[in-house]
Amino acid sequence: MEKSGRPFSVKRTVKWGDCDPAGIIYTPRVFDYLVESLEAWFREVVGVSWMELNWEMNMGMPMVRVECDFVRAPRPDQEIEVEVRVRKLGAASVTYALTGHDGAGQHYFRATLVGCFIARPDFKPTRVPDEFRARIAAYQAACGDG
Amino acid sequence: MEKSGRPFSVKRTVKWGDCDPAGIIYTPRVFDYLVESLEAWFREVVGVSWMELNWEMNMGMPMVRVECDFVRAPRPDQEIEVEVRVRKLGAASVTYALTGHDGAGQHYFRATLVGCFIARPDFKPTRVPDEFRARIAAYQAACGDG
Amino acid sequence: MEKSGRPFSVKRTVKWGDCDPAGIIYTPRVFDYLVESLEAWFREVVGVSWMELNWEMNMGMPMVRVECDFVRAPRPDQEIEVEVRVRKLGAASVTYALTGHDGAGQHYFRATLVGCFIARPDFKPTRVPDEFRARIAAYQAACGDG
Amino acid sequence: MEKSGRPFSVKRTVKWGDCDPAGIIYTPRVFDYLVESLEAWFREVVGVSWMELNWEMNMGMPMVRVECDFVRAPRPDQEIEVEVRVRKLGAASVTYALTGHDGAGQHYFRATLVGCFIARPDFKPTRVPDEFRARIAAYQAACGDG
Repeated sequence: MEKSGRPFSVKRTVKWGDCDPAGIIYTPRVFDYLVESLEAWFREVVGVSWMELNWEMNMGMPMVRVECDFVRAPRPDQEIEVEVRVRKLGAASVTYALTGHDGAGQHYFRATLVGCFIARPDFKPTRVPDEFRARIAAYQAACGDG
Repeated sequence: MEKSGRPFSVKRTVKWGDCDPAGIIYTPRVFDYLVESLEAWFREVVGVSWMELNWEMNMGMPMVRVECDFVRAPRPDQEIEVEVRVRKLGAASVTYALTGHDGAGQHYFRATLVGCFIARPDFKPTRVPDEFRARIAAYQAACGDG
Repeated sequence: MEKSGRPFSVKRTVKWGDCDPAGIIYTPRVFDYLVESLEAWFREVVGVSWMELNWEMNMGMPMVRVECDFVRAPRPDQEIEVEVRVRKLGAASVTYALTGHDGAGQHYFRATLVGCFIARPDFKPTRVPDEFRARIAAYQAACGDG
Repeated sequence: MEKSGRPFSVKRTVKWGDCDPAGIIYTPRVFDYLVESLEAWFREVVGVSWMELNWEMNMGMPMVRVECDFVRAPRPDQEIEVEVRVRKLGAASVTYALTGHDGAGQHYFRATLVGCFIARPDFKPTRVPDEFRARIAAYQAACGDG
């Protein structure tokens, strides 16, 4: 469930199938959580979906770098809220800070993702479009960042 | 396919279902590649599978930190070789350096993963067992590292 | 998002990463949708989570048969509602009918899943516990089925 | 690992991350195994990859129906061989029979998948191209089927 406030966040319940025989989340699934949260953020804040960005506008925003600290391992049925903030708005790239927490101060993971705008079909980096830039900067301001 | 030489590596073909509508690998799938390669390495080099480690030895080695640079986006049908090296063997943690390349010098991604040995059921960090430590150190030496 | 009415259903937005380079959902992801909907249904209607069922009650309900007709291929950003109904309540097994639709009459997929209650650790079939049976039968009645 | 004999099969080791907290494969992952085996079969037998089929030939072969019986639940580290046979070669559709076994007579799952050739971008069913038809029929004959 997406929350319309600022910072933007997505709530999800850790699924049985997200977890491995250790009974905790399987590490790669955390990156599904992160990228899916960023996708939802992009649709709401930037105003276009990744499908529109790629198939209609002939652009894209692939990740060029990801780092993540796993503070505590989520277990099945736990509710996790993934919060998305913008740390840096560059010429072609945007640096995001995402945090997975339980809404009561317990952190599960903290990540930094760097996405770079590219033009298709050659995937060369391209400037963040002005309209997008304005919306992202407004989001930063609404979050008290930037 | 796992190669028995040193450094240890796993070859795989990028699957249609690993890729998204942009026609390149979906970012979280790179972490599946990384962790699956580490799982195969662990079974061969340390000599026990993660299932045995968790369900028989009551231990585990969850990731505590991951970072990854995406140098070039893999596309369906490309062959990628993921090489696993050990960068640092700590008291309870092991730092791994994984590289995804095409065997001809083209890199796709470069990652650092830090795993920490824990004792179940409380998931408290525990010393790398001596037998494991000896095998991991021997692997480092065989790779010319450490 | 789960809806509390009857029949029980789960709403979800088709994600970018659920889709392949054809721009439609990658077939195996439909089974993720189906099983995740059943997991949510189980938690709400039967009253225990699969984690509790397995790790606390030493039981389980693995699938023994699945069939699915793909009526129309979902695309990124579409909203799909997966509805769960109980078609047959057997001695040890339960037959579920799941439908993925858009809430306006358009069907995407229609599936039948058969789950069988088992006792751990030998995974032998076991009778549906009476308390569960009563709740499942009540659900059938509330849906006008059974 | 793909085997070049007939019937065509793909060998794989059940991964830690394919399994859930019950310690057996998570049901939807079986469909990943099935569709990935079919993808490998298609590349070898039909002679084009799904990427080429979709992005170069403007066609596709989405699944229209899948059914699967889960005979025995695979566990981490087990080797499974998925064998692909063609049961029926229709005008636009092909019916596949896939079996997951351990090479020693133990079956894990048995599935039927029906794929339908379509023309992009409208996804209307289209006749199996003659060249493909010839190769698929030859495969059936080589397997002693059809």
